[in-house]
Amino acid sequence: ESTAKVIDGKHVAKQIREEIGVEIARMKEAIGIVPGLAVILVGDRKDSATYVRNKKKACEAVGINSLEVCLPENSTEQEVLNSITKFNEDPSVHGILVQLPLPSHMNEEKILNAVGIEKDVDGFHPLNIGRLAMRGRDPLFVPCTPKGCIELLHRYGIQIKGKKAVVIGRSNIVGMPAALLLQREDATVTIVHSRTNNPEGIIKEADIIISAVGQANMVRGSWIKPGAVIIDVGINPVEDSESPRGYRLVGDVCYEEVAKVASAITPVPGGVGPMTIAMLLSNTLSSAKRIHNFD
Amino acid sequence: ESTAKVIDGKHVAKQIREEIGVEIARMKEAIGIVPGLAVILVGDRKDSATYVRNKKKACEAVGINSLEVCLPENSTEQEVLNSITKFNEDPSVHGILVQLPLPSHMNEEKILNAVGIEKDVDGFHPLNIGRLAMRGRDPLFVPCTPKGCIELLHRYGIQIKGKKAVVIGRSNIVGMPAALLLQREDATVTIVHSRTNNPEGIIKEADIIISAVGQANMVRGSWIKPGAVIIDVGINPVEDSESPRGYRLVGDVCYEEVAKVASAITPVPGGVGPMTIAMLLSNTLSSAKRIHNFD
Ligand SMILES: NC(=O)C1=CN([C@@H]2O[C@H](COP(=O)(O)OP(=O)(O)OC[C@H]3O[C@@H](n4cnc5c(N)ncnc54)[C@H](OP(=O)(O)O)[C@@H]3O)[C@@H](O)[C@H]2O)C=CC1
Ligand SMILES: NC(=O)C1=CN([C@@H]2O[C@H](COP(=O)(O)OP(=O)(O)OC[C@H]3O[C@@H](n4cnc5c(N)ncnc54)[C@H](OP(=O)(O)O)[C@@H]3O)[C@@H](O)[C@H]2O)C=CC1
Repeated sequence: ESTAKVIDGKHVAKQIREEIGVEIARMKEAIGIVPGLAVILVGDRKDSATYVRNKKKACEAVGINSLEVCLPENSTEQEVLNSITKFNEDPSVHGILVQLPLPSHMNEEKILNAVGIEKDVDGFHPLNIGRLAMRGRDPLFVPCTPKGCIELLHRYGIQIKGKKAVVIGRSNIVGMPAALLLQREDATVTIVHSRTNNPEGIIKEADIIISAVGQANMVRGSWIKPGAVIIDVGINPVEDSESPRGYRLVGDVCYEEVAKVASAITPVPGGVGPMTIAMLLSNTLSSAKRIHNFD
Repeated sequence: ESTAKVIDGKHVAKQIREEIGVEIARMKEAIGIVPGLAVILVGDRKDSATYVRNKKKACEAVGINSLEVCLPENSTEQEVLNSITKFNEDPSVHGILVQLPLPSHMNEEKILNAVGIEKDVDGFHPLNIGRLAMRGRDPLFVPCTPKGCIELLHRYGIQIKGKKAVVIGRSNIVGMPAALLLQREDATVTIVHSRTNNPEGIIKEADIIISAVGQANMVRGSWIKPGAVIIDVGINPVEDSESPRGYRLVGDVCYEEVAKVASAITPVPGGVGPMTIAMLLSNTLSSAKRIHNFD
């Protein structure tokens, strides 16, 4: 009796990757330029290595040239900065991505600020965030995960303008930019965070909910206004003895309950996750187009 | 039967100016430095000339050195940029302010971006706004009017953390930064704008309301939750045949009605207005302290 439409991020992401592939081929043929994405990985966290490998594969599949620098855990900040400078100056590189988290002895702010703003495909530079917040200004890049959330709403024809939207979570990489994007599209936005009193009551008013908290199954069916649209960014491991790895991944939203009340919902996995990488490819392509003035 | 406490911005601003005067004297005595504020006025709008004159007077009263450049309406963008560059390089200048609006043939964004970020006492640079939006980052300057609103809440001991706040209006200079500031202090913030459906319903939920719309008496008594706190930024002329000028100034909030329901409210004039200039002086002092490493 689950009635919500499933917002199929995996399918949409595939479609977007195909569109990107076509554009990349067109650009290559017209001006001989292939977009390039450089990834800097510091240390040997397994999860980070997996993310970087997935990004690399995704780049190759659409025809983006992918470069990678792996630095040891005990590198100095200066060594990371040197890699960034090299890529800032390399005309074959159109996007630079520093895989987070960095080792704790490094100053993340300083390192991220070193990425040239015109190659900041993650969109995390404060100048990009400032422009995202300001009316009449446009960021060069929009952060990938929130951009993916909005793209899903667009591709499913869900109206944003004039709707009440609640974003749960206010991180720099998801919640806050997601709220700014919804606001730019004329939603009336409320941000709910860990200090919010009575979050259920606020969430229950929302026509559109984007959740980026990191708490398994936190958002219950009874918190949802019938017909609301749910974008679940959360990726949370829960124990599962039936799974070969001993755990499985769930969202912030209790899917079984909420799918009975909502009009549309993203699954986890297969919702926002695949969109994030698709948006990274999209940002890299836009960057190459902008740098080479190709339309 | 008006029961709300009046939040007396005029009084608080005077107090702040006195505190600033003391600090300036202390700095001068200790390191021989006097803060300097440079104002660039382009064209001959009467209201702009008045604002600039008021800022100049306020500077002099607290001991800030004030410099002024007046350029004719038909100046080129380059001439304005040249003045900015001169002040960026002038070590006696710690704050630079370009009086808005600029003549329509000029690119406001380009001109504002030319102000060195460490002298951007208006806090309008997108890099400052980005840092204001981001957790774990701090802007060098907070825009004066929203900073004045929050300062009033602080000085009247009004708790922000955990409260529901509604900001009406989302301009770059007031509404949007006011929302970011409330959020930094852990309020749960909703921004209401011209595309919001049923604004009354949303406003009625708020514990704290900051209104920056520019519509005389728009917010009615019936829109207010009993006990809410109201900061009225609006400055709107309404016809008044009894006034010598033929008009008087009112806020966005219908004071007579709302003062019967709210627990505290700023009057117009004498609420937020005087705080704006006080915050400009405060930003200029902080800038001089930062540049000269004085604490
Ligand atoms: N699909 C994808 O591609 C991506 C998925 N993610 C996933 O999204 C989730 C969020 O990631 P991220 O934004 O980086 O996380 P952060 O930990 O940086 O931020 C979490 C936010 O949730 C808020 N929060 C915590 N507990 C509660 C609560 N009980 N009620 C309301 N709000 C709460 C926090 O509030 P406060 O600010 O007050 O502390 C904070 O703002 C994670 O599960 C992550 O794995 C992240 C990035 C990409
Ligand atoms: N006290 C002081 O020192 C200062 C006072 N002011 C005063 O504050 C007021 C606002 O100034 P400013 O921010 O520059 O104005 P703007 O005109 O730049 O912004 C007005 C905002 O109000 C919104 N709005 C318009 N109509 C409505 C409505 N009916 N319901 C809800 N929202 C609405 C607009 O929405 P949308 O974005 O959808 O168009 C916009 O975001 C003015 O009266 C101004 O004089 C300003 C600066 C300093």
